[in-house]
Amino acid sequence: MAHDKTAVRSILDKVKSEGRTSLTAPEGRFVCDAYGIPVPQEGVAKSAAEAARLASDMGFPVVLKIVSPEILHKTEAGGVLVGIKDAAAAEQGFATIMANAKKYDAKANLVGVQVQQMLSGGQEVIVGAVSDPSFGKLVAFGLGGVLVEVLKDATFRLAPASQEDALSMLDGIAAADVLKGVRGAKAVNREALALVIQRVSELITDFPEISELDLNPVFATDRGATAADVRIVLDWNPAPARYRPSQDDIVRAMNRIMKPDAVAVIGASAEAGKIGNSVMKNLINGGYQGKLYPIHPKADEIMGHQAYKSVKDVPGDIDVAVFAIPAKFVAQALVEVGEKKIPGAVLIPSGFAETGNVEGQKEIQEIGRKYNVRLMGPNIYGFYYTWKNLCATFCTPYDFKGHTALSSQSGGIGMAIIGFSRSAKMGVSAIVGLGNKSDLDEDDLLTFFEQDDNTNVIAMHCEDLKDGRSFADVAKRVSKKKPVVMLKAGRTSLGARAASSHTGALAGNDKIYDDVLRQSGVIRAPGLRDMLEYARAIPVLATPKGENVVIITGAGGSGVLLSDACVDNKLTLMTMPQDLDAAFRKFIPPFGAAGNPVDITGGEPPTTYKNTIRLGLTDPRIHALILGYWHTIITPPMVFANLVVEVIDEMKAQGIHKPVVASLAGDVQVEEAAEYLFQHGVPAYPYSTEMPVAVLGAKYKWARGAGLL
Amino acid sequence: MAHDKTAVRSILDKVKSEGRTSLTAPEGRFVCDAYGIPVPQEGVAKSAAEAARLASDMGFPVVLKIVSPEILHKTEAGGVLVGIKDAAAAEQGFATIMANAKKYDAKANLVGVQVQQMLSGGQEVIVGAVSDPSFGKLVAFGLGGVLVEVLKDATFRLAPASQEDALSMLDGIAAADVLKGVRGAKAVNREALALVIQRVSELITDFPEISELDLNPVFATDRGATAADVRIVLDWNPAPARYRPSQDDIVRAMNRIMKPDAVAVIGASAEAGKIGNSVMKNLINGGYQGKLYPIHPKADEIMGHQAYKSVKDVPGDIDVAVFAIPAKFVAQALVEVGEKKIPGAVLIPSGFAETGNVEGQKEIQEIGRKYNVRLMGPNIYGFYYTWKNLCATFCTPYDFKGHTALSSQSGGIGMAIIGFSRSAKMGVSAIVGLGNKSDLDEDDLLTFFEQDDNTNVIAMHCEDLKDGRSFADVAKRVSKKKPVVMLKAGRTSLGARAASSHTGALAGNDKIYDDVLRQSGVIRAPGLRDMLEYARAIPVLATPKGENVVIITGAGGSGVLLSDACVDNKLTLMTMPQDLDAAFRKFIPPFGAAGNPVDITGGEPPTTYKNTIRLGLTDPRIHALILGYWHTIITPPMVFANLVVEVIDEMKAQGIHKPVVASLAGDVQVEEAAEYLFQHGVPAYPYSTEMPVAVLGAKYKWARGAGLL
Repeated sequence: MAHDKTAVRSILDKVKSEGRTSLTAPEGRFVCDAYGIPVPQEGVAKSAAEAARLASDMGFPVVLKIVSPEILHKTEAGGVLVGIKDAAAAEQGFATIMANAKKYDAKANLVGVQVQQMLSGGQEVIVGAVSDPSFGKLVAFGLGGVLVEVLKDATFRLAPASQEDALSMLDGIAAADVLKGVRGAKAVNREALALVIQRVSELITDFPEISELDLNPVFATDRGATAADVRIVLDWNPAPARYRPSQDDIVRAMNRIMKPDAVAVIGASAEAGKIGNSVMKNLINGGYQGKLYPIHPKADEIMGHQAYKSVKDVPGDIDVAVFAIPAKFVAQALVEVGEKKIPGAVLIPSGFAETGNVEGQKEIQEIGRKYNVRLMGPNIYGFYYTWKNLCATFCTPYDFKGHTALSSQSGGIGMAIIGFSRSAKMGVSAIVGLGNKSDLDEDDLLTFFEQDDNTNVIAMHCEDLKDGRSFADVAKRVSKKKPVVMLKAGRTSLGARAASSHTGALAGNDKIYDDVLRQSGVIRAPGLRDMLEYARAIPVLATPKGENVVIITGAGGSGVLLSDACVDNKLTLMTMPQDLDAAFRKFIPPFGAAGNPVDITGGEPPTTYKNTIRLGLTDPRIHALILGYWHTIITPPMVFANLVVEVIDEMKAQGIHKPVVASLAGDVQVEEAAEYLFQHGVPAYPYSTEMPVAVLGAKYKWARGAGLL
Repeated sequence: MAHDKTAVRSILDKVKSEGRTSLTAPEGRFVCDAYGIPVPQEGVAKSAAEAARLASDMGFPVVLKIVSPEILHKTEAGGVLVGIKDAAAAEQGFATIMANAKKYDAKANLVGVQVQQMLSGGQEVIVGAVSDPSFGKLVAFGLGGVLVEVLKDATFRLAPASQEDALSMLDGIAAADVLKGVRGAKAVNREALALVIQRVSELITDFPEISELDLNPVFATDRGATAADVRIVLDWNPAPARYRPSQDDIVRAMNRIMKPDAVAVIGASAEAGKIGNSVMKNLINGGYQGKLYPIHPKADEIMGHQAYKSVKDVPGDIDVAVFAIPAKFVAQALVEVGEKKIPGAVLIPSGFAETGNVEGQKEIQEIGRKYNVRLMGPNIYGFYYTWKNLCATFCTPYDFKGHTALSSQSGGIGMAIIGFSRSAKMGVSAIVGLGNKSDLDEDDLLTFFEQDDNTNVIAMHCEDLKDGRSFADVAKRVSKKKPVVMLKAGRTSLGARAASSHTGALAGNDKIYDDVLRQSGVIRAPGLRDMLEYARAIPVLATPKGENVVIITGAGGSGVLLSDACVDNKLTLMTMPQDLDAAFRKFIPPFGAAGNPVDITGGEPPTTYKNTIRLGLTDPRIHALILGYWHTIITPPMVFANLVVEVIDEMKAQGIHKPVVASLAGDVQVEEAAEYLFQHGVPAYPYSTEMPVAVLGAKYKWARGAGLL
């Protein structure tokens, strides 16, 4: 539908010229009309036939009211009829009202009868729009009344919203069932309501000066959705958009920065304990094979590498400069980096915005922009890119190459990432500290990892997104190809307060983050450990081809807890078809329970596990397996672990790849079994029925978001 | 308030005599009157003065209606007036109605004018009652309409409910703020509404045949609460109460069973691989020092102990008999145990209700009752009581004596408990398998652990409570002294389905469990790993003396996540007083953030941690500390761990005991530091900001429930 932008523009121009920041009710109504947002219709009929026609056009019921300058007390004059239900009644009503009015005041000038759409019944909902400092224009939806006010049961989408987005909002509130009809009420017309949402989202996109908009209430019925009241607020000075280089420019620069052939260390030092020494040591001991240029005002050589006074003195090209000098020297060195045309600066030093030195940070930002140097940090530990044996940090080199890329806004969380990864022997492609995010941020990293063949899952810790809108755009694209996990710290208002004292970031409303991340296909991790476990397990798990999950368990008690976890993680326990149930029953004792969970009971030998797992993998109706192992003498932990891997390998040889996770209940030997299983493609956890299901749930969330299910 | 029980009894008798199972509206109204539950008042006035008096008594507004057998269409006759707001209007109204009626039908017999309280405004709520198979009579509360129907926003308490219980229900729903007045509405009268809840709870307690009751809606206003509609359903054949021995009997028997001086093993065997062999081995290798009697039909001696054909042949007393024989032989051996007057039988064998052999289980239950033998199981791994070096299981002995008692309904979960405990070096007093719970259940265990000096926290996994009412009674008492943690499996409908296929247990509504466990002071664990971590950490943590929690962190990023976790776990971050803020600032760099979290920043030496932690422990306004450690070269993990323990010990010497937990972000060395801290009284977790706060939250939950805060 083509909207009448010209009409809206002229209204807004008028409002601006009058120095106002909000629209009057008639102006709001006019704007709605221009964008096809239904408002109560009205018109004046001069004849009974016209009354019937007007009423039929706008839909029944209608209200009829005498229009006459002389008649002020319309009801007293018998000049109002409500609840007119059909054309005949409208025609009849016109006659009645005119007759009454004539009787009431024979001299009155009877202009006609106003026909007005009568709103009632249905469900009162709210459609609105807000401008978020990070995400920009968002459309909001909720039910009217107490649900939105007390329970904050509202949902948000980036504007403009597609029809699919808009429809998903109707299911995005806790009280979604109300719209489907409860207590004998009819279901609302979902398409009509979604259309109102979509049109609002288009309106605020077309006119960024609209900072807030409220349609409250909107009457949603089985026939349509009509906004009874409109409120529009304007902001004539919207914040400027954050600078974004083109995708090509990002990729070009990031590839040089993350996979450099030549690294300069500004502030390199031979003196143990100095950061510039740690960085040099880590680059050398980590096994980096590219060129390495220590930069030092006096030294000729540092740790076996020729040193230079300035990057400008280095003969060849440099891809990235790692800064290990105090904050006050950064700007000058950065100018030299710019003049040397180095595309990236890794700014380890602290002492910028996080300590209140906002001006200092602005200065280096401007230098970076002027010379087209991308800045990582400041206030970071640096970064790892394992496939280049690159450890450009003051921490310690990381040993396990793999396909998980991680980033953190905070150095402390970065250290937790490194420790966990090492402890779990997690295969990592890169670990990056983003710190103050003066320039490089999550979108840049995503854009790099998207095309980095060494990375197939990206996990990010962040406290704020400087440009949530841009992140969402990039994440939406990247998450179609590779899972993106995010731990958003500062979820709660207390956490957000701590975040703002920590990085000066303005924490957005968490529900907005939640909705937008989902809309962008990002898997949100509820906590640090979850993010780490998701990052470890997701690349190990095969992508499921359908929603049917089956639990096979030796411990009935684990089966119950695993079922609980399936519900918590929105997984679907397959309803077992009769033939399949019978097939499972053949392998298990008569008192075992088939169905789902398949409870093979505790005293069974390895063959029972083997047969049932093989069946679960073979039958094409089953898409994922959750195994519940119970430690017994007859099937010890490593026997179980080996048989699982054996069956999975056998199936792989036949081209069958399904995600399988395991929960191990048993004595300490299950820890070794869990590690073995994990290293052989089965995320397995001792003493936990929650984590195996949570990581499977995360994989499913991704697959659904990427449209693979 | 004394209720009119006689009146209610006579109504119910009449209903029973008429073979009905529900009350008519007037009967329901009458029952409400007898229990002081306000219903709309009404009366017939014969004079204007009486109309005014009646109306004044019941409160305005009122409705007036003509009472006349001849006048059927009261409105048409001008015989109805609504919204009468004061005595004068009532008097006037009486006259108007009588005059109108006379005019309408001069011959009509005008009996008088009915004065009826007019309910409107306020908030519509629902007060109800249900009979739960496990918990018995429960009173329910929720808001009217969509909130209860779609969002299931209701809360339950065991009946009878105290005033405190009833008031807590008003805060127990998600939409609680509605009752406090929103959108300019007045707050409801909480005492009046709580009184209705209390009276309903008393009514259903006094008359157990009332199986369901609904007051829907109740109009709750700022002045009172009145039930507009009453529905009462009766069940003339309520289920009989489950048999419960007296507390003294339980304690006497349980002390002999759990801390036996003489154990018989029925089915003891010298043959490796047999359960009767494992049990003997575990008792001997575990170091049990009491008398040990192997029972075997043929052997004279087993593993160095004289064997007997029957327990009846054993010369002295026996405290407990451990059964390691097939199900079909259990009944006969149990009779002999009874005849020998052994107080307890540990029934390891499976093959009873869990495999469909319900009759077999009933048979042994009856034998147990007849001979007063308490039965543990059947279908269990047995039990441990470490302080007696007693391992009456087919698993392996457990090494770490301590003060945590654990139980599980399922054997698989029991194995997870043993493995986790051993891996974490958790100090344990007992681990007990409850299996089919033919007799001994959670209440018996709680009653024993309550008076067991070796136990100071009890953690239980359960799928159902056979007698939730009795458990709640016992837990309410015990949890005042010792923390009780419960993992209730089958939380979700899928989990409940798995539970019922597993043990034949009927899973109750999870919200009922949730509310009753809270009402009983029980800490509910959301998952298996949480239960285990709570069990491990709670006895280590000092009991907090107030709600003021302070985070001291080296990593700002951890501070944010720890703050989020505080909100999730309902902990209160202290608002830092100015003087204390200044005191903290003295120890931290100028760019560090005081407030709460206290962010000491990352590059600080051990003294900064030490000074701030000491201040946190010393200042009496702070009641608990959460430490966020960031691994740096200047303060390595073990240095941090040592300094924390040092400061805490120093404070302990001064009589200062506060709960302290730690989250460690760093490289793998933090794992050793976490273990050291845990063993020295500080629950500490590497790579997790959630778990340290969750265990502190669990301790707080307990302290609040026990009335210590």
